[in-house]
Amino acid sequence: MKTGIKVFAPATVSNLGCGFDLLGFPINGPGDVVNAKFCDKPGIHITKITKGKMLPYETHKNTAGVAAYAVLEKLGKEKEIGIELEIHKKMPFGSGMGSSAASAVAGAIAVNYLLDEPLTEWELLPLAAKGEMIASGGDIHLDNVAPCLLGGLTFNRNNAAYDVHRVYTPKGVHCTLIYPHIKILTKDARDILSPTTTLKKHVEQSANMGGLLLGFINGDLELVARSLKDVIIEPQRAKLIAGFYDVQKAAMEAGALGCSISGAGPSIFALSDNSVIAEEIGVAMKEVYDRMGIKNDLFVSTINKEGAVLY
Amino acid sequence: MKTGIKVFAPATVSNLGCGFDLLGFPINGPGDVVNAKFCDKPGIHITKITKGKMLPYETHKNTAGVAAYAVLEKLGKEKEIGIELEIHKKMPFGSGMGSSAASAVAGAIAVNYLLDEPLTEWELLPLAAKGEMIASGGDIHLDNVAPCLLGGLTFNRNNAAYDVHRVYTPKGVHCTLIYPHIKILTKDARDILSPTTTLKKHVEQSANMGGLLLGFINGDLELVARSLKDVIIEPQRAKLIAGFYDVQKAAMEAGALGCSISGAGPSIFALSDNSVIAEEIGVAMKEVYDRMGIKNDLFVSTINKEGAVLY
Repeated sequence: MKTGIKVFAPATVSNLGCGFDLLGFPINGPGDVVNAKFCDKPGIHITKITKGKMLPYETHKNTAGVAAYAVLEKLGKEKEIGIELEIHKKMPFGSGMGSSAASAVAGAIAVNYLLDEPLTEWELLPLAAKGEMIASGGDIHLDNVAPCLLGGLTFNRNNAAYDVHRVYTPKGVHCTLIYPHIKILTKDARDILSPTTTLKKHVEQSANMGGLLLGFINGDLELVARSLKDVIIEPQRAKLIAGFYDVQKAAMEAGALGCSISGAGPSIFALSDNSVIAEEIGVAMKEVYDRMGIKNDLFVSTINKEGAVLY
Repeated sequence: MKTGIKVFAPATVSNLGCGFDLLGFPINGPGDVVNAKFCDKPGIHITKITKGKMLPYETHKNTAGVAAYAVLEKLGKEKEIGIELEIHKKMPFGSGMGSSAASAVAGAIAVNYLLDEPLTEWELLPLAAKGEMIASGGDIHLDNVAPCLLGGLTFNRNNAAYDVHRVYTPKGVHCTLIYPHIKILTKDARDILSPTTTLKKHVEQSANMGGLLLGFINGDLELVARSLKDVIIEPQRAKLIAGFYDVQKAAMEAGALGCSISGAGPSIFALSDNSVIAEEIGVAMKEVYDRMGIKNDLFVSTINKEGAVLY
């Protein structure tokens, strides 16, 4: 039997413009590392948190803790087995990169791996989602949790029913992501959204979302490029992100297939069809924020098709 | 060189509930038959119309005529070549079964076949669409024209750009369609629609549209069934169609994957995964309208994957 393991859960890009609340994919590099080992006291105990000073140590308030406990509980072992977790945040908070989803997924899979994988990843999905709910304030949102856990592009038709589907993406697709150090809370980014839209915009957005799915599935990246547009959410949220349109313009001029807000922002992602262009997009995006004097972090990655893994 | 040919353009089911303005497929059976032969007088001349007494004989006012003329014009032959068309309507008007699209497509392909196919079907698409615009009052709508011409389920991301995509559907899928003899004009069915909707409904509808695409593509008919729901258009248009909810209930109880309004109505379609259930659905639907004393026509068909053909 293992005595301890280490897992990694990646940062994720959700929404993808026209796929608001429906689509997401993980990237490589940033994410959460969680170490788990057995201890004598039953339950989940968080013993260490690095680079995440705001995060609570109380299991029931901690995203990773809640998800980890949910796994133990699902197995009926919460009064028998004791597990200690160390959480190492290797990604920014409140960045639109799915930080809480990464913690929740890492907590859930850490316990599952430590116990020799009694649950499948599909069984872990609602348990990880339970962890993320702590952060998102009560609603189930799978657009970060699902891709973080399952890997690759995921489409969630129905959050409450965990009706999630993997969508093929062609090999060469790269993501360039920039996180400008601007404070936006997911809640504020949600509150700013108008509760209504027009039928015309609904049809246009839905058409683009379908085009995005077909483009990826058929490996038609020109269709992806035509479809990667957001006529509903982006125009409302862009105003929360200083420099958004300049960054978008720079990315498109550098050859991006499309560029929009990652999650609720302020991170901005751009897709491209190879690593050379992805790097060039990164240089162009960074230049905008550097010129504006806004600190930023840049990530260039393929679409991560593995998702959360044993480290 | 041919002296005369005969073509068939099928009736189509468009919208498919959550795919409003985006999706459509042809069925087998009802449609338009057009005979075309050369004559000495340059241009397009409509010499006969059967079962379509309301249709005008003037080429520039007739859906098939406009499309046929557009093909001649595209080839720069409108002042050289003369063609006579006979139009035989073998489907009802104003039924939500794409009657004007069938005429337009039949007109376009009749000329193209007669001239030994100088144009591809993709080149014919805008020309057929031009014909259908006469009927729809100025806007390009491809959700009937595209499937009628191309065959199979089609997704049109952008009407103005003719950005149309074929979508795979599994073999067994059947369509049961009932046309109750209730008068609804497409214009009225459009006018009744609220120009706004909610963000929540947009996301739900978009999620179902994506689910429908993925369900068909992956041959996952349970996903198709979960996705074949319309939270925006159907609740508004159902009130124009007497007995709609009873018919829908009867279809679902008989084993339909889903049931909604065909096009702008009043026809109602139901999908199923085999012919036995498709027939049973037909009996159940028909019973409702027979009981109500509303005359009706019933069609049971697979998804027609050929579209318009040389007869």
